[in-house]
Amino acid sequence: MPLQIELISLNNEVFRCFMGWSAVLVLKMFGMSLLTGLWRFITLTFANPEDLMSPKLKVKFDDPNVERVRRAHRNDLENILPFFIVGLLYTLTNPSAFIAINLFRAVGISRIVHTLVYAVVVVPQPARALSFFVALGATAYMALQVIVAGAF
Amino acid sequence: MPLQIELISLNNEVFRCFMGWSAVLVLKMFGMSLLTGLWRFITLTFANPEDLMSPKLKVKFDDPNVERVRRAHRNDLENILPFFIVGLLYTLTNPSAFIAINLFRAVGISRIVHTLVYAVVVVPQPARALSFFVALGATAYMALQVIVAGAF
Amino acid sequence: MPLQIELISLNNEVFRCFMGWSAVLVLKMFGMSLLTGLWRFITLTFANPEDLMSPKLKVKFDDPNVERVRRAHRNDLENILPFFIVGLLYTLTNPSAFIAINLFRAVGISRIVHTLVYAVVVVPQPARALSFFVALGATAYMALQVIVAGAF
Repeated sequence: MPLQIELISLNNEVFRCFMGWSAVLVLKMFGMSLLTGLWRFITLTFANPEDLMSPKLKVKFDDPNVERVRRAHRNDLENILPFFIVGLLYTLTNPSAFIAINLFRAVGISRIVHTLVYAVVVVPQPARALSFFVALGATAYMALQVIVAGAF
Repeated sequence: MPLQIELISLNNEVFRCFMGWSAVLVLKMFGMSLLTGLWRFITLTFANPEDLMSPKLKVKFDDPNVERVRRAHRNDLENILPFFIVGLLYTLTNPSAFIAINLFRAVGISRIVHTLVYAVVVVPQPARALSFFVALGATAYMALQVIVAGAF
Repeated sequence: MPLQIELISLNNEVFRCFMGWSAVLVLKMFGMSLLTGLWRFITLTFANPEDLMSPKLKVKFDDPNVERVRRAHRNDLENILPFFIVGLLYTLTNPSAFIAINLFRAVGISRIVHTLVYAVVVVPQPARALSFFVALGATAYMALQVIVAGAF
């Protein structure tokens, strides 16, 4: 078994794949912030008095477009952020490159699909549920592998 | 002092302990998603029109059971996710194995207790406050050690 | 190009800088939890029946002071937590020390300013928007560098 030093390396294609998808998912999450802001301006829905651009406006918390993007964003916090630590630790367990790379792709693609069907163009269920469970299942599998590697 | 390379290693019991608890806490957090979904189906509380399983249902945001699990989940985001980076960096400061392993255990166990007394079987205070502060105190101590190691 | 092993090291000033700012930002985030708790006690705004200290109190979810701190805290989750993985991976791409250290400082300082003008002393816009975009821009730049390093 190689040392972990050799795994945290740009020469390790699994690590490079983890780097790429992690950074793409962070940029995707930042896109949620921008999308929330866009809807706030379109619908004039601001949560703070100091954000109101006219004395005629009042703070508002219940615009369905803003709230939809915020729910999708919170779902990202709940699912993508744990992937970052699990994916890193899983890389250090020296997994099969084929399995690891495809798991990272599964997480990355399914979380992008989740955003598209939840917050961009609303697609009927089970589109969102499926994309949610693919990413959750892949991340949970990696977490189990990390526990096995840590325990034995 | 050993190189950090020797610390990020399955031969380092502190790192193995960090791996194990991190993965366990990620799985625990995913359990919150499933518990939220379970309560949504039991109470028929859905936040999106496309989730409604019958034309008679309307979106609902105020079920106390759903909201309780969501508050516990958000508390996890606020406390467990910062532990992941702090625990990793703390491991790289080459801490005493005895102290580090017991800090990781304190965080892991107290966050599981926090979930149990908050979102599974409601236990009167100060059960939740105590479990909250044990994990926060242990993580804050590690953060201070990381600052000291980074600064000097 | 040096091995990544040499980059994850207390001898690497970029890594030490990342450690320091990461730990400071975690402590800052924990400060938000304490500030939320403080406002809950000042305004007697508690979200759970078991938290009520007197039978005369009822659960309350709409205190503007509590909600303001909670919005600032959620904004931290959305922006600081992604910085932790991006900053770590960016450090591993062997960036210019000058650029990297100043990017970390930009994120750290602007997120502290964001908290001050949002949740401590409310400052008129565009103070909050500027501090938000400085940190987001710096983190997004690092994420792009990580994608380039991972892909090529």
